[in-house]
Amino acid sequence: MTRVDLSEVSCSIARTVAVMSDAWSWLIVRDLAVGLGRFDELHTDLGISRKVLSQRLIELTEAGVVERRAYQEHPPRFEYQLTEQGRDLIPVLRAMVTWGDEWRPTGRGAPMRYEHASCPGSRPEAVCDVCAEPVDPDDLVPVAGPGGRHGPGTALIGGYLK
Amino acid sequence: MTRVDLSEVSCSIARTVAVMSDAWSWLIVRDLAVGLGRFDELHTDLGISRKVLSQRLIELTEAGVVERRAYQEHPPRFEYQLTEQGRDLIPVLRAMVTWGDEWRPTGRGAPMRYEHASCPGSRPEAVCDVCAEPVDPDDLVPVAGPGGRHGPGTALIGGYLK
Repeated sequence: MTRVDLSEVSCSIARTVAVMSDAWSWLIVRDLAVGLGRFDELHTDLGISRKVLSQRLIELTEAGVVERRAYQEHPPRFEYQLTEQGRDLIPVLRAMVTWGDEWRPTGRGAPMRYEHASCPGSRPEAVCDVCAEPVDPDDLVPVAGPGGRHGPGTALIGGYLK
Repeated sequence: MTRVDLSEVSCSIARTVAVMSDAWSWLIVRDLAVGLGRFDELHTDLGISRKVLSQRLIELTEAGVVERRAYQEHPPRFEYQLTEQGRDLIPVLRAMVTWGDEWRPTGRGAPMRYEHASCPGSRPEAVCDVCAEPVDPDDLVPVAGPGGRHGPGTALIGGYLK
């Protein structure tokens, strides 16, 4: 049986998952979305081999989800960041958060919650409960929740890269 | 380096992708969500080996996302369906549809769109544009859109299982 090329299937779900090879692809996008961008940061946070991380970054870059940019010239240093395509995957990640919060709870509460970027401590629904202004999705920043825990795969919560 | 057990990471995204091994897991949930449930239907639609399909179904069943039920006693016949956990993954699929529609267009328009189950031809936002009633997400059914195409991976659009 010929393997189906998912990128050619007439289904936007198939075309999306065709870009995201496996769990690591999603977690790389997650890390880039919260501001981890250097190879060593990603390597430390995700706990995967440098080879697998490198392969996934190449795939995501070729797909247009990620781009590499120089942040220092002497010596040359690079970091990865999400393109517009990549940032548009964030609603998928948010839907995964909702599912994981409900069905794979930590027993200590949600690992992360979203608050209005300009209002620490807020818990916005459609408007920010602190400033009462409507909240644009781009104004949301992830912060550690009660179930957040320092450990592999949770660099932002653990704060050990800061 | 020890491989991280994603199901133990304090991140609801990691815990979600830990359940969904690869692209096929998502596409199996997609197919079950639109009413394909028999092994042979899934096998025909997805174009993967029986072995891989069987493995993914076992994983999803053990995870509680999918359940197998008898639909006939003599001879015994089974089909797969989403559990409540599984149905709660549908918002993730919808977010993928939005991304795929935007960034991996078919060139023929969106492969699928959602319409109000009771109003063929509707294009609901928050209310159904035909009956003007508020639309519960559970009342949405997927139907083929202008870019839908008969082919592997698109059994519902192609209609060749009916």
